[in-house]
Parts: sequence; C-alpha cells; structure tokens
Amino acid sequence: MKKNIFLIIFIGLFNQYTISQNNLSEKYNLMPWPQEISDSSENFLITTEFTVSISSIDKGKVEHAATTFLRRLSGRTGIFINKGFPSKINNTKKTSLEISFDKIASVTLEVDESYTLKITNKQLKVHAKTDIGAIRAIATLLQLTTNNKTTSYFPGITISDAPRFLWRGLMIDVARHFQPVSVIKRNLDAMASVKMNVFHWHLTDDQGFRIESNRYPKLHLLASDGLFYTQNQVKDVVNYATRLGIRVVPEFDVPGHASAILTAYPELGSKKDYAYSIERYAGVFNPTLNPTNDKTYAFLKNLFTEITPLFPDEYFHIGGDENAGKHWTENKEISAFKKNHGLNTNHDLQTYFNIRLEKILNDLHKKLMGWDEIMTPTMPTTAVIHSWRGKNEGLKESSLIKAAKKGYKTVLSNGYYIDRLLSVKNHYNVDPIGDVVLTKKERARILGGEVTMWSELVTPLTIDSRIWPRTAAIAERFWSSKSVTDIKNMQKRLKIVSFQLEELGLTHLKNKAVILRNISQYQDISSLIVLSNICEPLKIYSRNKGGTEYKSFSPFTLFADACTADAPDAISFNEHVISYLKTANNTSKQKIISFLTKWIENDASFKAINNNTKTHVLEKLSSQLKTVSIVLKKGLQHNTTLSKKDAIKASKVIQELKKPVADTELVIVSQLTALLQHLGMK
Amino acid sequence: MKKNIFLIIFIGLFNQYTISQNNLSEKYNLMPWPQEISDSSENFLITTEFTVSISSIDKGKVEHAATTFLRRLSGRTGIFINKGFPSKINNTKKTSLEISFDKIASVTLEVDESYTLKITNKQLKVHAKTDIGAIRAIATLLQLTTNNKTTSYFPGITISDAPRFLWRGLMIDVARHFQPVSVIKRNLDAMASVKMNVFHWHLTDDQGFRIESNRYPKLHLLASDGLFYTQNQVKDVVNYATRLGIRVVPEFDVPGHASAILTAYPELGSKKDYAYSIERYAGVFNPTLNPTNDKTYAFLKNLFTEITPLFPDEYFHIGGDENAGKHWTENKEISAFKKNHGLNTNHDLQTYFNIRLEKILNDLHKKLMGWDEIMTPTMPTTAVIHSWRGKNEGLKESSLIKAAKKGYKTVLSNGYYIDRLLSVKNHYNVDPIGDVVLTKKERARILGGEVTMWSELVTPLTIDSRIWPRTAAIAERFWSSKSVTDIKNMQKRLKIVSFQLEELGLTHLKNKAVILRNISQYQDISSLIVLSNICEPLKIYSRNKGGTEYKSFSPFTLFADACTADAPDAISFNEHVISYLKTANNTSKQKIISFLTKWIENDASFKAINNNTKTHVLEKLSSQLKTVSIVLKKGLQHNTTLSKKDAIKASKVIQELKKPVADTELVIVSQLTALLQHLGMK
Repeated sequence: MKKNIFLIIFIGLFNQYTISQNNLSEKYNLMPWPQEISDSSENFLITTEFTVSISSIDKGKVEHAATTFLRRLSGRTGIFINKGFPSKINNTKKTSLEISFDKIASVTLEVDESYTLKITNKQLKVHAKTDIGAIRAIATLLQLTTNNKTTSYFPGITISDAPRFLWRGLMIDVARHFQPVSVIKRNLDAMASVKMNVFHWHLTDDQGFRIESNRYPKLHLLASDGLFYTQNQVKDVVNYATRLGIRVVPEFDVPGHASAILTAYPELGSKKDYAYSIERYAGVFNPTLNPTNDKTYAFLKNLFTEITPLFPDEYFHIGGDENAGKHWTENKEISAFKKNHGLNTNHDLQTYFNIRLEKILNDLHKKLMGWDEIMTPTMPTTAVIHSWRGKNEGLKESSLIKAAKKGYKTVLSNGYYIDRLLSVKNHYNVDPIGDVVLTKKERARILGGEVTMWSELVTPLTIDSRIWPRTAAIAERFWSSKSVTDIKNMQKRLKIVSFQLEELGLTHLKNKAVILRNISQYQDISSLIVLSNICEPLKIYSRNKGGTEYKSFSPFTLFADACTADAPDAISFNEHVISYLKTANNTSKQKIISFLTKWIENDASFKAINNNTKTHVLEKLSSQLKTVSIVLKKGLQHNTTLSKKDAIKASKVIQELKKPVADTELVIVSQLTALLQHLGMK
Repeated sequence: MKKNIFLIIFIGLFNQYTISQNNLSEKYNLMPWPQEISDSSENFLITTEFTVSISSIDKGKVEHAATTFLRRLSGRTGIFINKGFPSKINNTKKTSLEISFDKIASVTLEVDESYTLKITNKQLKVHAKTDIGAIRAIATLLQLTTNNKTTSYFPGITISDAPRFLWRGLMIDVARHFQPVSVIKRNLDAMASVKMNVFHWHLTDDQGFRIESNRYPKLHLLASDGLFYTQNQVKDVVNYATRLGIRVVPEFDVPGHASAILTAYPELGSKKDYAYSIERYAGVFNPTLNPTNDKTYAFLKNLFTEITPLFPDEYFHIGGDENAGKHWTENKEISAFKKNHGLNTNHDLQTYFNIRLEKILNDLHKKLMGWDEIMTPTMPTTAVIHSWRGKNEGLKESSLIKAAKKGYKTVLSNGYYIDRLLSVKNHYNVDPIGDVVLTKKERARILGGEVTMWSELVTPLTIDSRIWPRTAAIAERFWSSKSVTDIKNMQKRLKIVSFQLEELGLTHLKNKAVILRNISQYQDISSLIVLSNICEPLKIYSRNKGGTEYKSFSPFTLFADACTADAPDAISFNEHVISYLKTANNTSKQKIISFLTKWIENDASFKAINNNTKTHVLEKLSSQLKTVSIVLKKGLQHNTTLSKKDAIKASKVIQELKKPVADTELVIVSQLTALLQHLGMK
C-alpha cells in the first residue's frame, strides 16, 4: 500500500486563519490543541518543594507517568525537586499537583481518554474518568512549563479535553529496515507525548520476517538476517506501550509481500521451484502465498495461534495489499481452483483467502484489519478497512468514505504517508472526513487515522527525523477539533514541540550533526549545516529512481540523510522573498540579503573541508549558490535592475540548481527565480 | 571502592616521546596501537565490488563482525557495496577481504586474541588462531580506512598483534543510576572497537538492585524503583557481549553497599528494627548484611544459584568494599559471635563471610573476585583481587603489586576511575606494572585492568561522554606495548577514534548539543558551546560538595553535564600560551588573540539568549571572561606592558574566575594568569 500514490494537496483550501481556533494558541505551545481552554493571570511557581499525589499508588500507568513527569520537570527546569516520587492523595496534606481518576481502564479502542486540568497559583489539579485520561493530562502539563530569567512556572490554565478520533496511530515498518527495541521505545514515548494511542507494527514484508517463532523457527532464522524481535522483546515493547496508554496492532502482511515467509517455507508459495529469497530492493514483488493450499491455512493458523497471545489488542492486521496475483495466474492448479470455486478474478481468490483468515483470527478472538484492497464486494463488514488510497489513486471516492458508507469500520492513512517527505503542511491539511456529509452511524465507523512510516530509505540513525516532528502535527489532526487548522500557528507550536521531543530522547535533531560529521570526515560541519538547511531529500520515493537504486544495505549516511522535510532556512527565505516581492518591505529585504551573504561566505568554509568523496558531490551546488547569491545581493543592495549579463548568468546557474544533487533538491530555487525576475525587470 | 582516593599522577614521568613507539603512529590512527606494524606504498581501493569471505559461515562472531564491517565501511565511505554479506572462502573465487581462523573459541580469560593482517593493493588478508582474534583484526581494519577527494582506500599495511594483558575491562555501575539495555549495548560496541574484552556489570548497590529475581522477587520489585533488567534482558546482553568477544562479570556487592537488598529483606540486616530504604544520595553507608546469620548464606546461596546460570563467565564479583562494620560493632549478638569464633576485628568477620561465600560460589563453579578489601591475611589466594587502592590511598604498596606478590590473581582499577573526570593524560600515564620488578609468576598474576564508571553523577544522557573517548586511551594501555606512551600522539589518534565512536552509535558528542538546547530553552546554542569548550565539570566528586548534594533523581541536564573532561579549546589555548611564553612565537600569539577575540564577542551572543534560570548562572562567567580577554588582547596586540590599572582589574577578575561556576571550573585560568603576569611585566 505504498507505491504510486499521489497525495491530494489541500493547500489553499484550509490555510486561512480559522476564527474558531482558540487564540490562546498564539500564547501556549500545546499540541494537540485541547478542545476547551481558558487562562487566567495566575501562575504556579515551580520550586524544590514541588510534590505530586495520585488517587492510587499501584505501580500503574499514572504512577509511572507522574514519576517520569517529575524527572522531566526537574531536567527541563534544573530545579532540584526534593521529592522524587508521587504519593497517594491525602486530604490532610496538599500537594502541588493532584491527579485523580475514577477507574483503571484497559488499553482498548473505546477507552475514555478525556480529562480536565486546572492550574491556579495554589495548585495543579487533574481529573479523568480513567487512568489513561490522567496520563493524557500529564502530557499536556509537560507542554505548559514556562520560565523567565529567574523562575519556572505553570501558567494559570483551565482545560477540558477529549480526542476527536478514537484511533490515532503511527505505523512503523520494521521489515524493510529493522528497528531495534530502543528505536521503538523512544518513538512510543514521543507518541504518548502528543497523545497518540496506536502503534501499528509492520512486522513482515518481502525484506524480512522480524519476529521470533518457535513454531516456525525458519521464519526468523532464515528470513531476517538475524534482525528480529525475540518474543520476550515483543512482550517488553507491548508492556511499555500499554503503560503509555498505547495499543499495539501487529501486521503480518499476507498473501503478498511474502518473499521473506517463502524464503523460509517455499512450499507455501504460489510458484513451484521458485528461488524465493529475502528481497534487497524496494518495490512491489510477486512472491505470494498459495491460497489454494490447505497447508497455507494450517501454517497461518499455527503461526497466529502462537503469535496472537503476545498482542492483547483485539485488532490484527493482515496486510492484504498490492497483490496483483501474477504468480496465481501463472499457476495452472491455482487457475483450476478458481474455476472450481467460482472465483472469477484474483481479487475474488484473495477475498476467499481473507475470509478463511478471518475465521482463523475470530477463533483467536481477533478482529481482522487489512489495507483497503481487502474491501471487495464479498468481504464481510466485520473487517476493518485501512484506507491508503483515495481519489489521488484513481478511485472515484476515498476508500475511507466508501468503507464507512458500506458498513466497515475504517482508519485513514491516505495523506499521512510521512515517508514521502512532504512538508508538514500537506499532511496537516488532510482531514479524515473533510466536508463529506455522513450519517451518524457512518461517522462512527471512521475510527481515526494512522501515520505510516515505510522504511525503504531509513535506518535507526535517520528514522526519527523522518517521523518527527511532522507526526506531532498529524497527531493534532487526529485529536483536536476539525477547526484547528491554522498553519502558521501550528508551525510555531511545532517548533517548540520538536525540541521537547528531543528532550524526551528522540534523535531527529542531533543525528543531523552525526551524519554531517561523518560526511565531513570529522572536520568543521558548519558549512554543511548551512547547505542542509536549504536542501530537502528527494520526495515521493524519487530518491530510488534515476542513477541509484537503494538496497536495504546501501549507505544511508549521505547528505540526503542529514537533510529533512521542511528545511528551516528555506522556509524562512521563501517567506521573506514572497513578502518582499509583495510589499517591498525592508525587513524582508534585509533578511534576504543576510541569507544571500551567508551563502556567499559559506562557499569558502565549504571549500576548506572539501576533500572526500561524500563532500565532493556538493562542490558545484555550493559554488553555484554563491554565484547566484552574489548577483541577487548586488541587485538588492544597490536597488537597481541587474545588468543583462548578470541576469543571464544567474538564470543559467538557477537552471542548474534545479537539478537534484546528491539525492536532494534545493528548495529555494523557485524564490531565487522569482527574485531574479523581479530584479531583472526593475 | 570509590571514596577519597587520590590518583597518583605520573605526568612528567612518562610523557617524553618514547623512541620505541613505532613512528607510523603519526601516520595512522589505530588505537590500541598494534604490537608490530609496517607499511608499504600500496593501497587497496574500496569500490562497489568490495567482497568479504570467511573460513566458516556459521552465524558466529566473525560472520556478524564481517557483516557489521560491511555496513560501517559503506556508511563511512558512502560506497554502495553490491554484496552486503560475507561468503565462505572459496579458493577459486578471490574476495577483497579474506578472513581465516583456526578455531571457534569460548569467550574466556585465557583465549588467544592474536591476529595478523596484511593489506596489499590486491587483497586484505586476516588470519587468527581463534574467531575472537579475527574480530579484533576487523576492529583494526575499521580504523584504517582512508580517503582522498575521489577515492576511499585501505593503506598497505602489515600487522601482527596480540594483547599485553588478558583482562581489559570496563565496569559500569547501573545501581546508582540505572542504564537501559540500549546504553549497555552501545558501550559494548564501543568496547569491542578498541579491543576491550570484559564488561563488569555492577548490578547492586545501596541505590538499587537492578536484576530480576524469581526466587526473591522483592529485590527487584521493592528495591529498584521499577528500574531493573529482566533475566531475558540479561541473557540478551550477555549474548550480545559474547558475540563481540566480551566476557560479562556480574557484581553483587556484599556485605556492605546493601541498602537495596535490605530494603527488600530487612531481616538479613545487621541492625534490628532499622528502617532500611533505597538510598537516594551518594556516599558510603552503614546498611550491611548480617554475616553471623545463617539465613544470610541461605539467601545468597539461593540467589546466586538462580543468577549464576545467566552469566557463563567463570568469574563472579562479590564487591566486598567499603564496609567499616559500624552496624556490626553496634550489634551485641554479632560482637558475641566474633568472640566465639575468634574473629578479632570486623575485617576478620568479613573474611569469615567471604570464605563462606567463596564456598557457595565454588559449588556453582564460579571464582570469587572482590575489591581489594577482601585481601586479608586469612583470605585464600584462590580469590581474585580487584585493586582500587594504591599508594595514593595511604597504602605502602599498590594493592595490585601486593596481591601479585602474595599469590593472588589481580586486576587494576586504581588510576582508571574515569568518573573522577580527570584528563585522559592522567589515566594514560598509569601503567599496571610500571617499573616494579616482578618474577615471571608474579607478573602472570596481573591479569590486566579495568576502567570504572561509577554512576552517581551520570544518566543515560551523559554516561557516554563520561566514559568516552578517554576509555579508548586506557584500552590502549591494556592492549599495547608498555612503550606506547606518547601523549601528544595518543591525543591525535584519540580525536579520530572519538568520531568513529560516534559513528558506531555513542552519544558522547551529540548529546552536548541536546543539553545545551535544553539549557538555552531552544535558542541559539553557539555561545554556550564556546563556554563549554573551556569549562570542565568539577572533578573527583567535588561536584557533590559545597552547596548542592545530588540525589539520584536530581537534574543532570545542567551546564556541567554538557561539559566534559579535556575541554578542547582549553587544551589548545593552554598549549599556545605555554608555547608563546616560552618562545614568543607569532603563530601561538595569533592563536591566543583569536581565542580572546572569540570570548570577547561571545558575551554578546550569550546575552542575546540569556533569559532563564539555567543560563542565568553563567552570566557573570561570560562577562568576566570578556573583561579579562579585552585586557589581555590589548596587551598582546600592541605588544606593550599593561597599565597598572588594567593589570589590577584583570587580576581581580581572574581571582573571581577561579571560583567554580554552575559546578564547573574554567580550566584556562592558570594560563590566563601566566599571560597576565607576562604582559604586566613586559
């Protein structure tokens, strides 16, 4: 469910300031923005005497969250808080923060996550119906700390909050590039900090089978390159997630995407004597389980019987995507089976497979979920449809809306494919429902959404910077009111949230320097930072086109890996050019000049380190950028029309700059062009 | 084994260039430096066709190391190596790198780690007696990659190598601050990269019991704050270490350092009705197991019977340190027991305890090891003595030498206490044997050394920067010839090794920026970097003196935590001042002026971010540094004697700068003073 999809870009439809978004969002950096919020002039001062009490001390989610809260509060403010652990609420002894909840809840789809929070200059009070609501409140609190020169404090705020959608997920593909437990755990921490509640674990694919099976040990022994989770590690991750109020939905992708399974058990394949092997490239491949072989079902039944107890959640994802059934068509026995069973197409055959799978899963008390290909006319509405295709994929109607109308519960991922490396704006603008009119029943079937992180082009070194901070903005889309749509305001809040995610343990900011130090062979990286702040990695899988085709073991320590979506200097420069060209304001003009100056000077710093194969490829980019910047700066500073010679020179160089370099694109090219046109015409 | 020790600082004794150190160490950045090395003018070019073969493909240590080698080689050079995995050596098909070894060895003390390595322009060849020798060779290879502008290559080198000492360890204390599995694993990777082979896991102390016990579950449930390793995690870590050729020696510290154990099982304590609880402070405390109670031995026997199968190594560390026996003396029954058993002192009583413990461990096929307090006259020489005290501790003779002479096997840690935050020079200068004359038998008893990382003042965020890169230099002391002692040369090589350790996954470099971003509240950190490059955290535990006393849950996200030993700008500045004052050379003068200019300008950048409680404390430091720098710069630039007024002003400010700020010291103060004296006297 990931090739050739073209995102519907709603830019312009939603980005005007929406009056109903509470204007306190200019003042506070909460994300997701709460449903109801008001503030007062009071502040609660944070001192060494800060204390926390909870309605029950039970080693449960809230005690853990409150302890973590104390560590983060202390770590962030530098205050030596005397009491390092929460106590039980005691009416005779007031604490700084009092957290109460009505009951301990299981981490399920329907759990109540609402909470209220009130901060006065005397106390912080949290109340929730469930312990999970209480930990959501604690996440809110951690976004509220404020400081001045001498004190740290919580602003006086009252919040009443609850999520818009029940299902707020992040999928991580650990098949194409394995991600160790530590990567998963830090991402779970990050998810909880922005109130996400489903971790969808894409555990198997053509490139690897990533979980230990005692029943079928060849799966992890022969089809993982030794990179898999032991069952104990899986339990550990599920416990970790549960404590954060996050459900874990595993995915075993069948019948397609099965190269790894068939590497271990080729006898279950649809093509006889086919040399199945772990796939090293990215793409859609033909190896497919044989749905006409009873051994396939016996295998899946045994495997799922072994695996499902590890995952307490009632949903179980079977993939089901991107199977054209090429090997089915080529196999005479399978063709005969289709005829005998009145299955006209390969889709019908896959539905036959899916229905048998659903029976197996139901016996194991699991609900089947699959990518939207499983939504065929004969598929029972008990299945949950994971919508990854929309109108952009050539469908008449988004598969999400279609599913809801047909009676399926459904979750949206179309529009939330963060591995495509588009700007956060694009994803933020995608609303699961939008302006579609639905009945109450239909609306209730739309459970929520899921961010998808496919891992063809990421490793543990880079994955955080591909997921975050953009996912925090999508988390807001899933939690907050539909009316919260102001892009500028979101960007302002996201910037702070991004730093707080680093504080939490994510590597999305710090690993940029690691990669650049590697690229520079341990020399000064400042000039590389300057370049990486205006370059973005090629988008929508085009990095895998052209000259290079990446394998799973190709190097992901290149300049493109240090660059990210939403290159910060590019955003700022582009905004100032647009503003300057519109209003000729001097502030923007000076900002533009200072950027151009930076890029001119940067070439000398860059040349000083330029002595290896990895920096070599950036030489031309750096010097061309300097050339254009000199011309533009001259025009701007002297406020004159450029000479024809200069304009032509700059124009030619800009043409060159449009070409990708080292799998990145220079994302200021349009505004360089606009500026040149303006200065050439003056 | 950690309080009040004062390191013997050998500086000046060893730091002259030793002629026997191979001068190729100026050319290559190997660490530890090999026993024998020669080079040629040939180079082996690294291309996409690079291949690796091994004498056996067995999913063992070498196959893993070779695969990891390919990933690192590709990641570092950016070369898309076509074949991602090693193959079996095939005489008809030559590979780029051929690795052969005679046998697969167990990871034990006596294992042969020698190897030979030969690089020509045609091939890289490794041979070793054991698979462990082979992986040591691969670690060497990864320090040899070189590049110019367009190619990456291995230089033509021949090495024949073997370690000087059998025991080359790193101890990590996970009791005072718990360190998750991911921290341990990345440190194991780092250890292997510099050929260390013992991970000593200090699992219990007053501040926590960090391992799951099914036999005595209160230990991890009541005495760890939920921060412990499950037995499965322990197995995982031991497997991980074994694959890297690293032994794991667990330590269960008894009978002292027992607050955590006694929190869970107070009935085993030496003081009746004492309210034992997990210790939150650092220090030496009185809670002690009762050595006169048979239940104590039953408990330890059961616990060790449960725990020892997790640790295949034959050595088992029982701590045994820092017990003054205060609670023993205060307990009448214990005093009576001593009298009845003819035990005159508490030391005798502890030896009684140790001997009973040794019996228990021997029955479990383990050899007892303990800190040097266990070396009493009646202690059998079957025990291994871990020497942490030397002449600096008031002993007449280093406990290491004493132990070796008395017939004990012994390991040195005195001099390798990296948590004291001294310069790498100090540790590098400590030789386990030095000039002491020993018989062959005595020499053979000196197994090697161990770096100790006590964790009172470190968290997962900072621990790497406290261990590395200094430990790499100590690893060289343990592996390389005694004659390898050139400090300047070591520093040159260590700088590169440090970056390679980051490439490997360590956080010692990148987390500095994380802490400074936190301190600056997400503003520009460049001025804080400048200050952190001349400030070092207070040394030898003095951070815990004075105003603050740190608890285990105090914030370790302060300026001192971003600073490290061997502050880089300070080293450079101090060297240039010394050089300038000696020879009045202009290069050094210009360097000094540029540092002074940096510090003058830095104050303005610093003031621009100065708006919170954490930066506030650095205000004075920044502005005083500016004041002194202005005066000194004036004197240097104009080559004149300073006015009396200027000299007095600067002198006063330097006095102020001598005082610790935010738990750090400005380590350029001596050279500022020297420079001022010089300029005042001109």
